Amino acid sequence: MTGLFERHRPTLQAAVNAAAKRDYWSAYSEIPSGKIYGETAKDDGLAIYKARLGKFFNLPGHPANDTVGAEVSPFGPSLGIAYPAASVDMLVSASRVAAPQWASASPEVRTGICLEILARLNARSFEMANAVMHTTGQAFAMAFQAGGPHAQDRGLEAVAYAYAEMTRTPVQATWTKPQGRGEPIVMEKHWRIVPRGVSLVIGCNTFPTWNSYPGLFASLATGNTLIVKPHPAAILPLAITVEIARQVLVEEGFAADIVLLAVDAPGSEITKDLVQHPAIAIIDYTGSNSFGSWVRANAGSADVYTEEAGVNSIVIGATDNFAGMCSNIAFSLSLYSGQMCTAPQDIFVPRDGIETNEGHKSFDEVAAGIAAAVDGLLADPARAAGVCGAIANPATLARVASSRSLGRVVRDSAALEGLGEARTATPLIVAVDAADTDAYGEERFGPIAFVVAVDDVADGVNRAAELAERKGAITAALYETNEARILAAADRFALAGVNLSVNLTGGIYVNQSAAFSDFHVTGANPAGNASLTDAAFVANRFRVVMWRRPVAA
Amino acid sequence: MTGLFERHRPTLQAAVNAAAKRDYWSAYSEIPSGKIYGETAKDDGLAIYKARLGKFFNLPGHPANDTVGAEVSPFGPSLGIAYPAASVDMLVSASRVAAPQWASASPEVRTGICLEILARLNARSFEMANAVMHTTGQAFAMAFQAGGPHAQDRGLEAVAYAYAEMTRTPVQATWTKPQGRGEPIVMEKHWRIVPRGVSLVIGCNTFPTWNSYPGLFASLATGNTLIVKPHPAAILPLAITVEIARQVLVEEGFAADIVLLAVDAPGSEITKDLVQHPAIAIIDYTGSNSFGSWVRANAGSADVYTEEAGVNSIVIGATDNFAGMCSNIAFSLSLYSGQMCTAPQDIFVPRDGIETNEGHKSFDEVAAGIAAAVDGLLADPARAAGVCGAIANPATLARVASSRSLGRVVRDSAALEGLGEARTATPLIVAVDAADTDAYGEERFGPIAFVVAVDDVADGVNRAAELAERKGAITAALYETNEARILAAADRFALAGVNLSVNLTGGIYVNQSAAFSDFHVTGANPAGNASLTDAAFVANRFRVVMWRRPVAA
Repeated sequence: MTGLFERHRPTLQAAVNAAAKRDYWSAYSEIPSGKIYGETAKDDGLAIYKARLGKFFNLPGHPANDTVGAEVSPFGPSLGIAYPAASVDMLVSASRVAAPQWASASPEVRTGICLEILARLNARSFEMANAVMHTTGQAFAMAFQAGGPHAQDRGLEAVAYAYAEMTRTPVQATWTKPQGRGEPIVMEKHWRIVPRGVSLVIGCNTFPTWNSYPGLFASLATGNTLIVKPHPAAILPLAITVEIARQVLVEEGFAADIVLLAVDAPGSEITKDLVQHPAIAIIDYTGSNSFGSWVRANAGSADVYTEEAGVNSIVIGATDNFAGMCSNIAFSLSLYSGQMCTAPQDIFVPRDGIETNEGHKSFDEVAAGIAAAVDGLLADPARAAGVCGAIANPATLARVASSRSLGRVVRDSAALEGLGEARTATPLIVAVDAADTDAYGEERFGPIAFVVAVDDVADGVNRAAELAERKGAITAALYETNEARILAAADRFALAGVNLSVNLTGGIYVNQSAAFSDFHVTGANPAGNASLTDAAFVANRFRVVMWRRPVAA
Repeated sequence: MTGLFERHRPTLQAAVNAAAKRDYWSAYSEIPSGKIYGETAKDDGLAIYKARLGKFFNLPGHPANDTVGAEVSPFGPSLGIAYPAASVDMLVSASRVAAPQWASASPEVRTGICLEILARLNARSFEMANAVMHTTGQAFAMAFQAGGPHAQDRGLEAVAYAYAEMTRTPVQATWTKPQGRGEPIVMEKHWRIVPRGVSLVIGCNTFPTWNSYPGLFASLATGNTLIVKPHPAAILPLAITVEIARQVLVEEGFAADIVLLAVDAPGSEITKDLVQHPAIAIIDYTGSNSFGSWVRANAGSADVYTEEAGVNSIVIGATDNFAGMCSNIAFSLSLYSGQMCTAPQDIFVPRDGIETNEGHKSFDEVAAGIAAAVDGLLADPARAAGVCGAIANPATLARVASSRSLGRVVRDSAALEGLGEARTATPLIVAVDAADTDAYGEERFGPIAFVVAVDDVADGVNRAAELAERKGAITAALYETNEARILAAADRFALAGVNLSVNLTGGIYVNQSAAFSDFHVTGANPAGNASLTDAAFVANRFRVVMWRRPVAA
């Protein structure tokens, strides 16, 4: 029963070590290469994806009384896949039936199964790339990385933390209490891990796997049964995940229903009923602040872990690499058309300009420099398509349109060339003043950025940090050459609970968060109440229960 | 600034190791001996206690706009101590003013200060014993142990877990990502611990220090400021604690108001206003289920850690030491007159009796054996006073009186002899049938026990476990000689989230929970949502925030 654990133990141990050191480490290659994934992997993945289109997605033995599915690729075509759908009561009761067997499995057995699921997901990363691309609008290369190996790394990270927490207390110990000159009192004590119950994972449209895997694997490893609720527009990536999980469970002699898929159709969502069901003990949620706030208020006694949204900022004080700064920011604004929860929205620039290696640059010159860098990055249509991808939600295009009037347009948004029926938009950049809080002080999800004129870098840092405290923020970036001002900004953003990147000019972007090194979201501002992945994210997903008795003398 | 940390580092390291091994370990001697605490310590402690009576309890610099205090010893006299009282707004605003300084102290500095506070509390254990005795009704020896060294061990345990969690992520790391044949990308990363905010500790009447110290020290070590809200009937032990904490803080250059005392008078409690204040980020609560449920529902976004109440059971199947079993149970029922959250209430006995080393014993013989053991234990008035102590709350006496009619009285409760005006009561033991759930199926706090006739041991285990699932339970005990039935009971009680003690016949009692080995409460049934002390109890009391930048090539 612990064969899988032994097979994957080196990966687990390396993951536990990496999480403690926080140097670079990854278990699953981010390079979509035939040498790594097999020469036919790319074609096979595409073929499997295409073979699913227009068909019923069969999950053998899964409870169902209906079929649901209306996914449409942001690149154009309908997926036409129908998924087995069950009522909330059917799902919860199937999950509870499966629960005792999973709860009684050892942490090692459960961990081994999680690691095998991750290994199989990794082998199917090309299939997943197509599934993620055509549900989120991510370009293929990003869909491969973020939907495949990066998501798997985040899942492994959660398993590593869960395993470390579950094994922190010994299974057994002898307790020997001295009694002065008398015989000591000796007790044997036995501890076991007891899961919390049914765990609900609510996925989002833009990163269905990356954002779901930490909660999903943390809950599964700690013995809870799972109900996975995808966003109605991005079911396929999580359906594939559930399919693989159920296959591994059954092969290992467990009930498939330990992992269930909860699909619904737009307009008849079952999420609220799931959240309010008294059997749900844990909820992982990624999505909007408004629904996140509803989930937190209505989850009853369930523990809730959220990643919501916020307003991410860049503050520019000075730079010794103006061109590098502009191109780095341009990439951060353009990547997946600003649809990352980590993408910057507000760029605070002193209204009197900044000092750079190219001499003094006025506010307008800084704004123009960034706009020009975006233009340069997206000049080649093929590269533009690879960076921007498509727009997941039609409402985002409408938001871009209405944002033009919020200030002075420095760079207009436009559709990408040569992408046919795909829904696309390049970054809109609007210049505003610090006083125009109605414009830049709200999250405007999508390729929408504001260059905000402020008094100086300290004013910018303060405004960015206050915005983070009020509205939430997942990332912040600073360009500054004065060390004291850098350290002061680090202090201020820490108070606001925002992870800060300083002077990024090369191949690392503020949007990026690397498993085993960068914690994603701090839980310390309204952008989310939890962090991916720290001990706090896993330690409450189980309880420790003891029995003890005297040892006969 | 880290002098205290260095001084106490060996204690901290030993505590961290002990918590991992879970063998017997204690930092603070439970023996009230002059050899350990100083030859004059006992007299000094009593003298200091007496000198406080009838006076104003001065906390220099503490915000106050009133004085409050109406403590009356369960042994008779009024304490007559008046404490500085402040409004909720005054307390919260003083706490917030003190917060930035404490948040910016390093984990080592904060940990060192916590360890120094504990060391000074330990040195004043005799003073604390008098304070606990005359606010809770505990007999002196118990008040010394539970109010002093055992509580301090629990506080140290929380500090050890907090320190381990805070230092799990490095302060700094270098992240080096290979780039094929190119130069690697190198980043420096810096992490810091960010506290959650103002932490509220709500103490109880019966164990003002033991139950408060884990949350108090866990929150303080992790950088939160504290508002300590004692039960109006048991202020002095926590006032002394706050006094010592403030003294150490000031000596180390910190604001005294990092730790505040929130006193109120019966009938004009401020607890609800504190719980609902939006600045409160963490709440530790010990008390009734009804108010606990209100706290959980009204705490807003604050994290809530509760120890509430439950119905603890003993199930008797068989024993090879009938006399040892009866005297062990008798002590558990009598200790502090059943006013421990860990005291058993329901004793399930097969209605056809049990097999013992003294031959078959009928249901009535088992009940009579326990009753006789209580009589024997309490026959000597001095010993009875030392075991039972006094009754904290007058309502408990009324509850004893009204419980007599719930079944057949096997042993009646009576006042202790020779304790003058003290409020006392020995255990009432009532025999009922398993069908009489109205009698034994509710918590009846105090010296009230039921011997419940069940079909067999399996029936008893199931009823006890179901009661734990429905009403909560902190402890369970089993007497059984068949190993398979013992293991089955361990499985069943684990499912119900109850720590189980098997075949206790000697000097260890089901009521006792030892720091560094026994977790207290599992958090897995309605008796509480947290456990003292595991990683889950501390890991959410802070957040980790990063800043990073490229390392110049």
